[in-house]
Amino acid sequence: MFRHIVLLKWTDDAGEEQKAEVFRRLSELPGAIPEIRRYEFGPDAGLADDNFDAAAVADFDSPEDYVVYRDHPVHIAAIKESIVPILAQRVAIQYEL
Amino acid sequence: MFRHIVLLKWTDDAGEEQKAEVFRRLSELPGAIPEIRRYEFGPDAGLADDNFDAAAVADFDSPEDYVVYRDHPVHIAAIKESIVPILAQRVAIQYEL
Repeated sequence: MFRHIVLLKWTDDAGEEQKAEVFRRLSELPGAIPEIRRYEFGPDAGLADDNFDAAAVADFDSPEDYVVYRDHPVHIAAIKESIVPILAQRVAIQYEL
Repeated sequence: MFRHIVLLKWTDDAGEEQKAEVFRRLSELPGAIPEIRRYEFGPDAGLADDNFDAAAVADFDSPEDYVVYRDHPVHIAAIKESIVPILAQRVAIQYEL
C-alpha cells in the first residue's frame, strides 16, 4: 500500500461552517475516486496546543493511484473551493506501508 | 479508534545512518507499548519537493491509550536519542477515526 498524509492549519478567522465544509467535501472523494482504498480524516482532538487543525490519510494500491487522486478534478475542486480559502499552512508526506 | 500522526523534517546535515536509526527505534515501540493497536511509519517517497521527511501514524483504542504512548519512557528515549538530534521541524495531530 501507498499512503498520503496531509495536515492542515486553518487561518485564525476560519469559521466553523467553513471548517465543516472541508470535511463534507473530503467525504465525497472516495465515491468520486475509486483508486482510494481507505480514507480517514478529521479535526484535531485538542490534546496539544501546537497541533495542526485537520488531517487526511489516504491509502492507495500504488504511487500511480495516489497521483490519480492528487490530480483528480473533484479533489482539485475541493481543495480550491473549501480548503484554500481558510488555509494557513499545509504539510504533506507520502510513504510505502 | 484514536489516531496520532506526526510528520518530521530533518536538518540538512542529518546523516543516512541517523535517519535509519529513527526507524529502528520506532520499530521497537509496538513491542514495548501494548496500547499501540497499529503503527506505521516510513520515509517520504520523494514525489513532492516540499514534503516532510518522515511520518509515523499510531492508532489506539482511546485518547487515554495515546497518552500512555506519548508519555512512555521507551518512546521518550527514542525521541530524545534518535529524533531530536536531527530534527528541523515537527507537526502533529490527533483525531478520532
